[in-house]
Amino acid sequence: MSMPLEVMRQLTEEQIAFVKRSGLKAEALEPGFVQLRMPLTGNQNHIGSMYAGALFTLAEIPGGALFLTSFDVQRFYPIIKEMNLRFRRPAKGDISVTARLSEEQIEQLQQQALSTGKAEFVLELQLTDDSAEVVAESRGVYQLRAR
Amino acid sequence: MSMPLEVMRQLTEEQIAFVKRSGLKAEALEPGFVQLRMPLTGNQNHIGSMYAGALFTLAEIPGGALFLTSFDVQRFYPIIKEMNLRFRRPAKGDISVTARLSEEQIEQLQQQALSTGKAEFVLELQLTDDSAEVVAESRGVYQLRAR
Repeated sequence: MSMPLEVMRQLTEEQIAFVKRSGLKAEALEPGFVQLRMPLTGNQNHIGSMYAGALFTLAEIPGGALFLTSFDVQRFYPIIKEMNLRFRRPAKGDISVTARLSEEQIEQLQQQALSTGKAEFVLELQLTDDSAEVVAESRGVYQLRAR
Repeated sequence: MSMPLEVMRQLTEEQIAFVKRSGLKAEALEPGFVQLRMPLTGNQNHIGSMYAGALFTLAEIPGGALFLTSFDVQRFYPIIKEMNLRFRRPAKGDISVTARLSEEQIEQLQQQALSTGKAEFVLELQLTDDSAEVVAESRGVYQLRAR
């Protein structure tokens, strides 16, 4: 049932053309844990820092990446319902994000999606530069849906 | 002082490589009024509708486009502080957005930015498909800053 790492990486980085064009990289893809990185190169805005849409993409993809690593992709699929992003300071280099779901959360979400058709989960994330400075904070609301 | 339309269009569609890659088009660029369009082609997600990051970009760029059409670009520049997006239904075709600032708002924002160095404005927008169905709603908080 579990997917080879290389397949998960390819799905995370390349399945969505919009994401592939951004150059986003999956640095860790484990059950309940993902780490992603967005390069500054190719993603600069009008003042040379990272464009907000690239930061959005970096904040949004963890929901899908955690889905790939943690849920039965044959029985479920994820959708995003809402995203809030607060931009704290200019992102002047590559930016990273980590996201986690506990074993208990994963189990509970699967049970709920199986019994009711869907289950909501929230990811509150910090987007950080290589000095661990937070450049943006996000709150994403996702639904796990039964196929 | 006012910028030729073709220059505004090029800045809106091409200045930020991330935006250019999305294929976003400026359909109207007037003082206090902009209309933008995001093509579905090239921007599909894992279920064939428009990827959330493309919707974010369509919701975010009006702040910069209104800046170009409405403010003195020699004296000011815009930054985004916060963005909230609610995804209402799958975007199954090209998506459009319109955004407005009144003459009074523009005048007031310029005065405030000149006297204090910055001025905040909020854009609450609806992203619609060609049947005028709302696929997403956004609330963006921007700052106009004096150079």
